[in-house]
Formats: sequence, structure tokens, C-alpha cells
Amino acid sequence: MEKVRVCFYPENRCIEVNKGENLLRAAMEADVHINASCGGEGYCGKCRVIVEKGDVQQKLQTKLTEEEIKQGYVLACSSTLESDAEVRVPIESQIGDRRVLERKPPIPLKGYTLSAKDWAERLPQWELNPPTTKFHLILEKPTLQDNLSDAERIKRALSRIADLKDAVVDYPMLQVLPSLLRASSFDVTITVLDRGQEIRAVRIEKGDTTLRQAAIAVDVGTTTISVQLIDLQTGEVTAEASDYNGQISYGEDIISRIIYSTRATGLAKLQSAAVNTIWNLIQQLVEKSNIEFCSITHVCISGNTTMVHLLLGLDPRYIRVDPYIPVAQVFPWIKASNIGIRIASGVYMRVTPCVASYVGGDIVSGVLASGMFNSDKMTLYIDIGTNGEMALGNKDWMVTCSCSAGPAFEGAGVKHGMRATRGAIEQVRINEVTLEPMIITVGNKRPIGICGSGLIDTLAELFLTGIIDEKGKIRLELSTPRVKEGESGGEYILAWANETGTGRDVVITDGDIDNLMRAKAAIYAGMQVLLEEVKMDIDDIEEILIAGAFGRYLEIDKAIIIGLLPDVDTEKIKFVGNGSLLGSYLQALSKNFIKEADRIAKMMTYIELSTNPHFMEQYVSALFLPHTNIEEFPTVKQRITKVRKIVQSGISEGDVT
Amino acid sequence: MEKVRVCFYPENRCIEVNKGENLLRAAMEADVHINASCGGEGYCGKCRVIVEKGDVQQKLQTKLTEEEIKQGYVLACSSTLESDAEVRVPIESQIGDRRVLERKPPIPLKGYTLSAKDWAERLPQWELNPPTTKFHLILEKPTLQDNLSDAERIKRALSRIADLKDAVVDYPMLQVLPSLLRASSFDVTITVLDRGQEIRAVRIEKGDTTLRQAAIAVDVGTTTISVQLIDLQTGEVTAEASDYNGQISYGEDIISRIIYSTRATGLAKLQSAAVNTIWNLIQQLVEKSNIEFCSITHVCISGNTTMVHLLLGLDPRYIRVDPYIPVAQVFPWIKASNIGIRIASGVYMRVTPCVASYVGGDIVSGVLASGMFNSDKMTLYIDIGTNGEMALGNKDWMVTCSCSAGPAFEGAGVKHGMRATRGAIEQVRINEVTLEPMIITVGNKRPIGICGSGLIDTLAELFLTGIIDEKGKIRLELSTPRVKEGESGGEYILAWANETGTGRDVVITDGDIDNLMRAKAAIYAGMQVLLEEVKMDIDDIEEILIAGAFGRYLEIDKAIIIGLLPDVDTEKIKFVGNGSLLGSYLQALSKNFIKEADRIAKMMTYIELSTNPHFMEQYVSALFLPHTNIEEFPTVKQRITKVRKIVQSGISEGDVT
Repeated sequence: MEKVRVCFYPENRCIEVNKGENLLRAAMEADVHINASCGGEGYCGKCRVIVEKGDVQQKLQTKLTEEEIKQGYVLACSSTLESDAEVRVPIESQIGDRRVLERKPPIPLKGYTLSAKDWAERLPQWELNPPTTKFHLILEKPTLQDNLSDAERIKRALSRIADLKDAVVDYPMLQVLPSLLRASSFDVTITVLDRGQEIRAVRIEKGDTTLRQAAIAVDVGTTTISVQLIDLQTGEVTAEASDYNGQISYGEDIISRIIYSTRATGLAKLQSAAVNTIWNLIQQLVEKSNIEFCSITHVCISGNTTMVHLLLGLDPRYIRVDPYIPVAQVFPWIKASNIGIRIASGVYMRVTPCVASYVGGDIVSGVLASGMFNSDKMTLYIDIGTNGEMALGNKDWMVTCSCSAGPAFEGAGVKHGMRATRGAIEQVRINEVTLEPMIITVGNKRPIGICGSGLIDTLAELFLTGIIDEKGKIRLELSTPRVKEGESGGEYILAWANETGTGRDVVITDGDIDNLMRAKAAIYAGMQVLLEEVKMDIDDIEEILIAGAFGRYLEIDKAIIIGLLPDVDTEKIKFVGNGSLLGSYLQALSKNFIKEADRIAKMMTYIELSTNPHFMEQYVSALFLPHTNIEEFPTVKQRITKVRKIVQSGISEGDVT
Repeated sequence: MEKVRVCFYPENRCIEVNKGENLLRAAMEADVHINASCGGEGYCGKCRVIVEKGDVQQKLQTKLTEEEIKQGYVLACSSTLESDAEVRVPIESQIGDRRVLERKPPIPLKGYTLSAKDWAERLPQWELNPPTTKFHLILEKPTLQDNLSDAERIKRALSRIADLKDAVVDYPMLQVLPSLLRASSFDVTITVLDRGQEIRAVRIEKGDTTLRQAAIAVDVGTTTISVQLIDLQTGEVTAEASDYNGQISYGEDIISRIIYSTRATGLAKLQSAAVNTIWNLIQQLVEKSNIEFCSITHVCISGNTTMVHLLLGLDPRYIRVDPYIPVAQVFPWIKASNIGIRIASGVYMRVTPCVASYVGGDIVSGVLASGMFNSDKMTLYIDIGTNGEMALGNKDWMVTCSCSAGPAFEGAGVKHGMRATRGAIEQVRINEVTLEPMIITVGNKRPIGICGSGLIDTLAELFLTGIIDEKGKIRLELSTPRVKEGESGGEYILAWANETGTGRDVVITDGDIDNLMRAKAAIYAGMQVLLEEVKMDIDDIEEILIAGAFGRYLEIDKAIIIGLLPDVDTEKIKFVGNGSLLGSYLQALSKNFIKEADRIAKMMTYIELSTNPHFMEQYVSALFLPHTNIEEFPTVKQRITKVRKIVQSGISEGDVT
């Protein structure tokens, strides 16, 4: 039988199959997930993939638009492989139920999430003073005696009601000016953009539209993009939505995307993937609100440095290589339509400045949103993802760094790691005596893997119960069937094959634990270096702010047990939520916040960890549970002692299994 | 025989011919000129026209590109009319020999043309300080310790050698920044544009290109576009070229172009016609110089208000109707590529501000170039074309107006009027006694018509010799065969049919003279109104500056005889040449001149003549030769008396015919 080789992207998993093999079967064989719910009949249309290379015969083209067919889309279920091929699985075919993004934390969080009331206290007094302002002008109609040009007439009127004499009238606005002025009998609303150095009249509308003004705030995350539609009349968020960043199809993490961007048209594809996600979200928001597209006057975007580069189409390749240099830290206001966000003419876009290649505008925005920039308290701001980015300081000074934690907390590099979608184990308890687990999954479905919060839970429980030692090694000598020697070291079985959604055991391995240990050690070491840099101690930290989607589901005590977070009074720890989005929101509301964000980005001193002599030292010390120096974790020490006592007594009282 | 009706544009001459008639013959019949030199065989390819409507069968398609065929081009000589049709004759098919634009004045001009030495005296001390500056930067290469982004690295280097800390890096420059920096080992040249309110880094080049910097200066005239290529190392004009404005195909004058612009896609067509002319000229200049495209860093453009609107694609329709309002007087710096001038990326374009709908940036530029803005002398600046635009004042104040003179001086509205191309009568003398003319034509060819300077000459000679009276009426009673009753009033025959290139008499008619009288009266009346406005007199004028192509060929004494110019000491009158182009040139050289031009545009007080109670009064008084009040023209009075005496004595000595 003739063989063909097919590779699936973004996973880059390749497999040899018989020529003529069904594409969906090949994907399954290669362990690549493609949604398919109709069993292969072709009527659900969910298993669409893009054939990038090779001869793939398709029997059905229903459910595909002409445009899609032109782009190479096929339904995997009804296609066969006739040659070697390369197939890309788009994000929508990987992820079924996007609503999971909006899941509520499953249990009351042990930790305090900042509330609206808190923001009011934490942020300085501010007024609704957005970078765009609408002015309703009833202009004097031109006469032979008063024959100023249309543009000068508007500037004169603006200078009479505000100090805007030197406003530049945007070129595209000049192109519609005369007809619109006359069609509206010189009764118009002018939108003026304050770019800091320059005031620019950017849009003209008929009549009085001053009561209709809105803005868009965006957080461009590597995994998720979140968008808010803000009513600038009230300053309130009218609607909010999130979706996976469409770039996921081209790589899960920053590094693989940077590599993809260096291909021919790679950068353009990544740019349009993110733009499409944003644009779709904006359309959704407009649909479900009573705000129209034409009311939107500006867009504020925050994201990590790489995401911002990809969004703006700036070459990010030097972010990845020593000495890690971005194209820019500060970005000019550009038209949203320049990158393909075609809301309306004259809508400009602000991008929050970045600090360095791995401390981006998302952190600047979060420091703004959390009020840290306005606080006397010595604060640690921390955003945990593939990189643990953090900032230490207060309103007067800040140091910042990024620790390459690896993607373990995001479920990657972990055998059964997965995103927090249906069937992901998100909470774990292990009985100290029986060593049997209790698990809760997202959506209460049969478990198919473990997500980030589940992994931290698992690690903490394994440690507390003594299933792993201080080095994170599974104790194979324990007399429980849950522990066994796997293909590459020890494994702890969280769910038996007959209980899972995959028909296989769901396990955590020594290798997985190693990756998690490295991730938590990097973050803890980073924090220690920042403290050393300013000659301070953990005890000096008055507040810890945890940002990001990951933080939202984090159980603080578990994070302390594994030594990810320092052993401080948990009252000091607060959840910020999506700080990046919140910071975008604040900048959309007020020029003062834009100025503050610029100031924050400038005041942050970036500490490069890869050249810092203390970082490796601290990192090695942190490769223990909770830490080499157990005295740094007094409450964890107490707790371990207590649990070990129970275990001791339990065992002495008799074997209960 | 079936008839079809064909209309030729821009002349808008329509004619009925037999169906199947040859298109070239139909054009000849309609008195529409189309170049055709091969007699109709189709090998010269010069008679290309655009069929805009109707069924035209073409037998030959040689000499036409596929693109042209798609656009509707046919060769008139080998096409037949099969239905009613509309045919446009493009400028290149109307005008054969473009070199005539560069003709030298045929005789030493009676009048003083400002020389380079004069400019040095008339302009204030200035330095070469163009709006774009090139900085050669050898940047420190980034390290882990010094890890500023590429853009911030450039800004830091700029701030060290010049005060440019807050420069905005242009978005398109960001897109090429990282690869170019590294390909050049961080040895680059940055072009910085000072837009007044904002400093912007607009281009990056490898290595040191500071010795290669050039600019483009443009005058966009209604008839002619002139372009200079300026070496910014020396400040000298490296090459210069002119061509007819490609918009002529859509109408000869401003009004017909504005009307055309209101058609669907009319504005876009006019814009691209002018852009193409400019772009072709720039290409010619670059070809014949040793300056490369990539050396050009900015473009400065001046033109009348309508031309600037059409060039920028701004709707000019309200310029034409009471109260005559342009879209803008001040224009933002825009990228040259925005309107299709694709010199290189990052090349921005400055457009000289206008004063009003009929006093444009060409006048502002001329007032700048002539040094009038810097002079203590009470000066009259005058540019004669379809509109006589003028400015009166000195360095402290200026009043300005535009008189609708009509196109008579440009040869339109005159039976045998024509542009100053081959065969145009440009100089005329008439013997006082015999009343026989002596004529000189452009290119010394058989006469086919009369151009502007020829018309003024003719009018002056007719008046001096008494062939016409003070009202401009031809004296039919004179006993010379040169004078006869024509189809509509009197005619004077300048050339007999057997001497001309057309085989018909070349004549000037009572109607032509009426049009010329109205034109000269409007200009003289405009000047009088400006003087009245500031309570001054002709005697107060210390200098008269005549600008424009028309002025270049004007014989001053003839212009005074007919009362177009006031009867002042001719020493006071100087020719500026193309003031608009010169002003563009100066602005390209120095930011100070840009500031001055902005100041001039603001300081000019525009006097609207159509509502001025004195204008009609003055106009009626000026509808005489030289003027109702002959005492305003003492030297003309003397001269007439003298000539009339010769005539008297000549006649008394016997009839010489």
C-alpha cells in the first residue's frame, strides 16, 4: 500500500498513513483535535481545515462558501489524502464551545477581587476627558462678506468654543467636508482628536451627534482577545466580549508566532488573524448594544510587545533573539483602518507603550488600572502566563522584569495539559490517607485533561500528601495503584481510563511536575531579583496584585504551598482581573490616563534577568517545594507538619484502602 | 443617408455627419483640431482620441496599447462613426510640439526681468534650512544592558545631535526599521520632517546619504504645470521642465473643469490627469539629472485654489457659485503617495496656502518669491490669466483681489485665438499710413491664429493707427481692404487666406475686441478698487511686479496703450517670471520661507469685487481705450497725438495703397 505523509499545523504533528486515507481519521491518528460532531457525514460542517500543500480530494463541499473553497478549506471528514500534504487546523475547528471563555469561577475564590468601589479609591480623581471630543457647531453660513473656506470656518468656530485654533483638519475629512456641510445646512458635529503634540479634526457628521460617542478598548492577549464597547456619555462599558486570538492557528505561544512571522506573508497572515478577531468582536458588541458603528470615535489597545507588533504589522523577529529588541516601545496614533479595522473614517487608534520586549503595554495598562501608579504602598504586580511579567514599586518608582516561565501553567509541555475548556480538570483534592483524588472539571464533563489551575492544585495536593517529595519526584514506593512507573518516570493517575472522556488514564508525570516546578521557580526567582535590586524583602511588600485570566482561577493558598507566590498574609493579595483591558478602558476615557500610561512606561526600570547574576542562584533555590529555604514559607511549613501528622496517624490507625 | 451626431470634447463642438463617416474627417468638419501627420494611414499614431459614448468602428489598432484600447482609445483616422457618439480629444492629440513651451521671448523685452542678483537683494537673509533634514546616525548596537527598541534608539541618537527628543516615528518607517537597521549594521540616515507642530521621522536609509538630498518644486497652473528638481546640497535647481496640464482634455479653464469635476468620477479623473503630468515631469527631470528618485525628500506645490483642490481630490464645486467658498485655504502635509506621486516612501508634500477661492497659493508663492513681503515699497503684484489676480501692499499689509477677466488673453473667446504654439501670431505692427500689418509668428510658420501677446499687440496697433475708435469699434469706413464687414460686425484681416496655414483669412473681429476690452477693463478696475480700498493713487505705486507665463511675453508699452496696465514710468515695472514656481522652490529650501508663506496668506485682506460698489463703476470707465479718463494715461495721450499727426500728414501727402 502506498504511503503518504501528512503534517498538521499549528501542532506540527506529522504521520504516515495509507494513500487515500480519510483526513479526519489521519488527524485522529496523529492526535490532532478537530471538531467533528456528525460522525463524518459532512452535515455539521465543523471539521473544516485548510489544505496548505498536497493533493486532497474532497467529496463534499457543502457548508463551505466559495471564498473558503478558494482559500483551500475542505471538510476533513469527507476528504482523502492523495499525496503528502500539509494541513492547517484553524482555531474554530480546534475549539468548539467558545462560551467557556466566559465561565464563572467554580467556587468562591480564596482571594479578593478588586471591585468597582475599590477602583474609585485606588485611582486618582479623574474626569471623563477622552482623547476625542465632539463639538456641535452651528456655523454661520458663508457669505460674500464672510467667505472663509469650509475648513477655516470650522477652525474658527472651534477656536471660539475651545482653544483649538491650530487644529489640523485631517485630509480625508477635507474630502467630504463641502458636501456634508451643505447637506446639513452647516449644522454639524466635529470630532477632534488630541494626539498630544497635535490637535486634529478627524471627522464631520451631520447635525448634533454629541450625545452619541463611544470608544473601543482592547486587550490583545496571546491566547485571548477581549474587547469592550464604551459609551462615552456615561463612561460605562456597554458590552464586552472575548474570543481566542485567531493567531492560535499559527502557533500557540509568542515564540512560535514570531517564527511564523518570518515566513513569506507570515506577518501579514498573523496581523490579519488578530485584526479579524478584533473586528468580529467589535461587530458582536455593536450588534448586542444600541450603539452604532459610527458613534465610535477612537480605539485604545493594550497587549504584550509581540502581540502589538503583530497587530501593527511590525517585524517582531528581533524580540526573540539576544539582545531582545522590539521595533518600537512607543507607537504613533494611527488610523484603525490602516490595519483593517474599518469602523468609520477618522477613527484613530492608541496603542499603550511597552517597556521592553517582554514587558509590554499589557503590564503598563495593568499598573495603570490597578492604581499601583498612584499608590504609596510597596506593591508587586504580577501577570502569570508563558512569561511571568511583574512590576515592583509604587507611585514614585518601579522595577520590572519578565521570567520565562514556559507554558506549563497554560497546559502546554504537560502530558495531559489542556486549556480550560470542557472536560479540563480544574480542581483537585487528594485524601491524605487514601491518596485518592477528588476532581472537578470545567462543565462537569468526563475528564480529558488538566488545565492550569488544576495543575497547581494537583501539584500542591501531591506535595501536601507526600506523594511527591520536595524535589517534585513521585514516590513510586507508595502503596497505591494511583502511583505507577510510566513510560518516562513516575505517574500519578488522576482519573482511570474508564472514567475519562478519552478512554485513557489522565495522569500527571514526573516530567510534567518538572515543568511546573521550573515555571514556578522562574517566577519566584524573578520576584526575588526585583526585591534584591531595590534592597528590599518579601516582608516589605504591602500588596500583591495578580492580573490576568490565569490569576482569576488561581487558588492563592495552593500557589503559596508550591512556592509560586511568597508566603505573605493572604489579605495582601488581590486579583486585578484583566488589567490590560481595564487600562485600555481607562485610557479610552481620559487623556490624563493616557499621559499616566506614557509616564508609567517611561518610569519603569527594566531588569534583564538573563544577564542577572542572582537570577540563576534564586532560580535553583526555588526548584524545591515550596523552596530550598523552608523558613521563607512559615505557614506552608506549619501546614505540611499538620498534614503529615494526619497521615502518620491515619496510617497508624490502620490502612483504609 | 442616415445621419449621426458626434460631439467632440473638451471643445463641446457637435456636428451631424453621415453614418459611417471617418472620425478624423468629422473632427475637421467640426473645426476640432486633432494631430494627424500621416494623412490617415494610421502609422503615425498621433490622432488617438477616446470614445466616451457611441459605436465607433476601428479598422486599425496598431500604435495602441491594450491598456489604451481598454480605456476606449481609437485612432481617429481609421475609425468610422456608426452611431451618435461622444469623443474626447486628449491633450497630446491637440498639441503637437510641446517644446514650444520653452520658447524664448522673440525680441528683447521692453521691461526688466528680475535676475538672480535681484533676488539676493529682494529676499531677506536666509539659510538652506529645508523642512526635511537628513541625519547620519551610527547607532550604538543594542546589548542586553542597552536594550532600547529600534525606534527609541533612533530618537535617543537624534536627541543627542539635535533637539528632536519628541519626534514621532512614522508608522510606515516602523515597518522597515528592524531589517534595515541590521542590514546596515546600525549605520543609517534618518530623514526628519518638521511639519511645524510636530517633528516626524519619515524615512530610514542605509549608510550615509546626507549628501544626497533633493526636493521637488511644482507650480500647478490651469494650462501649464512646471516642475523643478532641486539639489538640496547646493540649493540649486538641477533640472526644470514644463508641460500642459493633462486636465486640459477635460476643459480649458477653471470653470469648465469644476463643472467636469461634478460628474461621476470626474474629480478622480481630473486629479489623476494632473498627477500624471506632475509624475511624468518628475520622471523626466530625474532622467536628465544625476539625482535619483530616492534622494527626493519632500515636495512643495503651489497653484491656484481650484488647481490645488483638483490635485488633492477636494470637491471644488462651491468655488464656482456665490459666495465662492473653497474647501480649505490651508492644507495639511500629506504623503505624496496619497495622491499617487510615488517617489519614495516617506515623501511628504507641502501645499502653499490659499487666500480665497480666486486668490490662490500661486499668488502667495509669488508674493513670497518676488520679495514683496519683505519690501517697504508700495507694490502691485499682478498675475494675468483668465483671472487677473493681484495684490497691493508691502511687508506690513496687503490687499488682494481677483478680477474675472475672461479667457480672451489666453486666446479663447476670440475667433482666431489660440495658444502660443507654432503658427500663432505673437507680434504685430501696423503701418499708420498704409494700415498694412507686419506679423511674426511662433516658430516663424504660416499664421494660423493669434495668441495672447499678439492680441494685445494687435489691439494697441489698431488703436494707435485709428483703425478702431476709443470704444474698440472697427472703422468700417476706412479705405483699406484689410477692414471689412464680417458675419457679425467689423473685421480686420491680419493675414490673407493664401498666406495662412489654414487657407482662410486670419482676422480680428469687433467681437474679439469687445472681449479683450472687457478683460483689460476688469483688471484695471480691480487695481483701482484695491487702491481706493487703501485710499491710495496710481502715483503711490512704487513698483509693479508682473508674474506668470503671459507676463513673460507681454510688451509693456502695448499693455499701457490699451489701458491694461496703468501709465506709470516703465522703470517701475518688472517681470517676476513664474512666481508660483519660484515660491515653491523657496519653500522647498527653507522652513523660514514656509513660515513666511503662511504669514503672507494670513495677512492678505481679500476684497470681493462682485459686491464692491466701486468695481462696476471703475469697470465701465475702463471700457475705453485707453480709459474714459484719458488724463490717467498722459504718455499714451502724447503718443496718440503724435501718431495721428503722422497719419494726417501721410494721408495729406497722398494715398499710398
